[in-house]
Amino acid sequence: MKILGLDSSGLVASVAVVEDDALVAEYATNYKKTHSQTLLPMLEALAEMIELDMGTIDGIAIASGPGSFTGLRIGSATAKGLGLVLGKPLIEVPTLEGLAWNLWGSDRIVCPLMDARRNQVYTAAYEFLPQGEGFAMDTVISQNPKDIDIILEELTEIGRPVVFLGDGVPVYADTIREKCHVPYALAPAGSNRQRGASIAALGAVYLRQGKTVSAAGHKPEYLRKSQAEQESQRRQCS
Amino acid sequence: MKILGLDSSGLVASVAVVEDDALVAEYATNYKKTHSQTLLPMLEALAEMIELDMGTIDGIAIASGPGSFTGLRIGSATAKGLGLVLGKPLIEVPTLEGLAWNLWGSDRIVCPLMDARRNQVYTAAYEFLPQGEGFAMDTVISQNPKDIDIILEELTEIGRPVVFLGDGVPVYADTIREKCHVPYALAPAGSNRQRGASIAALGAVYLRQGKTVSAAGHKPEYLRKSQAEQESQRRQCS
Repeated sequence: MKILGLDSSGLVASVAVVEDDALVAEYATNYKKTHSQTLLPMLEALAEMIELDMGTIDGIAIASGPGSFTGLRIGSATAKGLGLVLGKPLIEVPTLEGLAWNLWGSDRIVCPLMDARRNQVYTAAYEFLPQGEGFAMDTVISQNPKDIDIILEELTEIGRPVVFLGDGVPVYADTIREKCHVPYALAPAGSNRQRGASIAALGAVYLRQGKTVSAAGHKPEYLRKSQAEQESQRRQCS
Repeated sequence: MKILGLDSSGLVASVAVVEDDALVAEYATNYKKTHSQTLLPMLEALAEMIELDMGTIDGIAIASGPGSFTGLRIGSATAKGLGLVLGKPLIEVPTLEGLAWNLWGSDRIVCPLMDARRNQVYTAAYEFLPQGEGFAMDTVISQNPKDIDIILEELTEIGRPVVFLGDGVPVYADTIREKCHVPYALAPAGSNRQRGASIAALGAVYLRQGKTVSAAGHKPEYLRKSQAEQESQRRQCS
């Protein structure tokens, strides 16, 4: 089974191809260019490097949100376009699950923190449970935008050691140090940001479970309204 | 601190740039092309994509072996060339440590298996111990070429759950199933093969410890003689 994985939900743009149990190729950048300048050129370069026949792909896994509105739209538009042209299903992988998958096999609570501004993070918590010759990832706290203080309280209540990762970590590192009352670690470079490989690998799991959508049917999951929408709503209600 | 990481020790060719706690870019392929066709073009493409000024790099981390003789030589030659021209130190990261770093934070014994043919693997065993806000990686069994049966016996003796990874896993999966008498897991796509990001991240750790070599002084660590050398030795001794 061959899966193309795309993630442009945050500052990282990443594309990857996973075939069965191996990564065939991955290309990721975390740079000030916009995803419209990077995502497709990276996919093109990667496809050429591995002489990829796009027709042999079984599904297109896309980091479906939460994340930056523009980033998610560029990723979704790319995935929809590819899916339509190739006649392949899309697989929506929640961004936070993809992030957590980077720390596959950890015995700790894995808590991705994506900076959502205004003291908020998009967050969730997962755990890995042994299953066969691997691990299954279970949800401990469902994905939501919330105050950083709230998620730290929830983790303290659970009482288990935690690993944090994501672009919210450098933003809220001092808050974590002050208010996280369970043992914690901060994931290092290489596993602390979005990876196309994780989206593709989780995509393969979901595809086997039949969890796909059509290219036309796919929509990103923003989890909250854009600032413009919120302001418009405020104006209407006042 | 900005580190360039290179790994061409196995079938994977991978280049990455890590700056402080974040991956700036990574490009990896696991494809039938030779590393002489992939490694430098990938580095060039990546450098262009992130507008990398090579002069700003603090060190060049290279997967220093074990691995394929040709792969290691191409990687070393590339690193030496860059180091000489840029006047930057090289950082030798043992390939097996780089592989194990992919599973950063695991509470299991991490056992990389690189296929070394003739029923042998290049292998070692590591464990992660909490240290500050992260983990330090400790060696449990030093790197060596050995029979797959021997490493499985050693792991059984230690008696702790294990995670296996590396290109030796698909080759010896049946042997693992038969002869590994401790709970084990097999790492998934995305973390089960060499990553330039892990070489760069570990390279940063070593650079901070002052563990560098000059471009002229660097030599890959083959761990055993090439088949040609072994045969020549056999002829001389018979």
